[in-house]
Amino acid sequence: MTQNISISPLTEVAFASYGDVLNCDGDPDKIINAGLCGRFHDRATVDVGNARVGISLFRSELRQLPYQLDLVERHPDGSQAFIPMSMDPFLVVVADADLQPHAFITNPGEGINFHRGTWHGVLTPLAGPGLFAVIDRIGDTPNLEEHHYDTPYFINF
Amino acid sequence: MTQNISISPLTEVAFASYGDVLNCDGDPDKIINAGLCGRFHDRATVDVGNARVGISLFRSELRQLPYQLDLVERHPDGSQAFIPMSMDPFLVVVADADLQPHAFITNPGEGINFHRGTWHGVLTPLAGPGLFAVIDRIGDTPNLEEHHYDTPYFINF
Repeated sequence: MTQNISISPLTEVAFASYGDVLNCDGDPDKIINAGLCGRFHDRATVDVGNARVGISLFRSELRQLPYQLDLVERHPDGSQAFIPMSMDPFLVVVADADLQPHAFITNPGEGINFHRGTWHGVLTPLAGPGLFAVIDRIGDTPNLEEHHYDTPYFINF
Repeated sequence: MTQNISISPLTEVAFASYGDVLNCDGDPDKIINAGLCGRFHDRATVDVGNARVGISLFRSELRQLPYQLDLVERHPDGSQAFIPMSMDPFLVVVADADLQPHAFITNPGEGINFHRGTWHGVLTPLAGPGLFAVIDRIGDTPNLEEHHYDTPYFINF
């Protein structure tokens, strides 16, 4: 049996139950630096309980479509933001509580922040250097649950 | 009188008293995602006191060299990280306690995190879309002090 998932454009509405879309859509909240810089303020729900927030860098191998999804994971103790450090779209996979997956493609210059406890796929850059800043919980709990699918999903446009 | 400042390459050692350099130099701290991703773990001292950490996006006009430095600012209540969302180097200006400025140019794929209270210039992209993720304190204090130089500095290679 083959299970296929189609990739949808990433929108704030479609992604709302999984996390935040970080982009510069709309007007800036504040103009700073003598009119030369727009601040799109406080766009993510950073939630790490009473632990620390850290900034890490992830450098990932590029993936190819169709992408075979075998695994999703979640972080019960904190949110996790992926900020691309190049202007390349990347694939974002999330899953519902019943583990049904959904796939989105970002626009250039967009990041995402998974809400605490959201099932998601691993980082899947499709182009570029595969370099991301990751803002997540720094703590001493495992903060990781994994689910392996018995039958993989194939993700493509 | 003309005051000139030469731009130096950004290195961890040269920048240590001002903040953290966020890059993938050296080996990753951890290999994740079945060997396909390196995690360069917890590279910044995120320090916002007892306030929240937020993720904002800054979209800045490009600046040109020589760059005229009239102003530095500092955030007494929190650190501030600039993560470029394109692979373009940008100019980083900091100043000592006596307000003597120093200028650095990043390498592609590098961000920085100003330590709490470090005097620094405003965001100065020299190329690219001028798009940055900013990780800093979300709070209800002004958290901003500015210093205007009587005589501007001119920054160039």
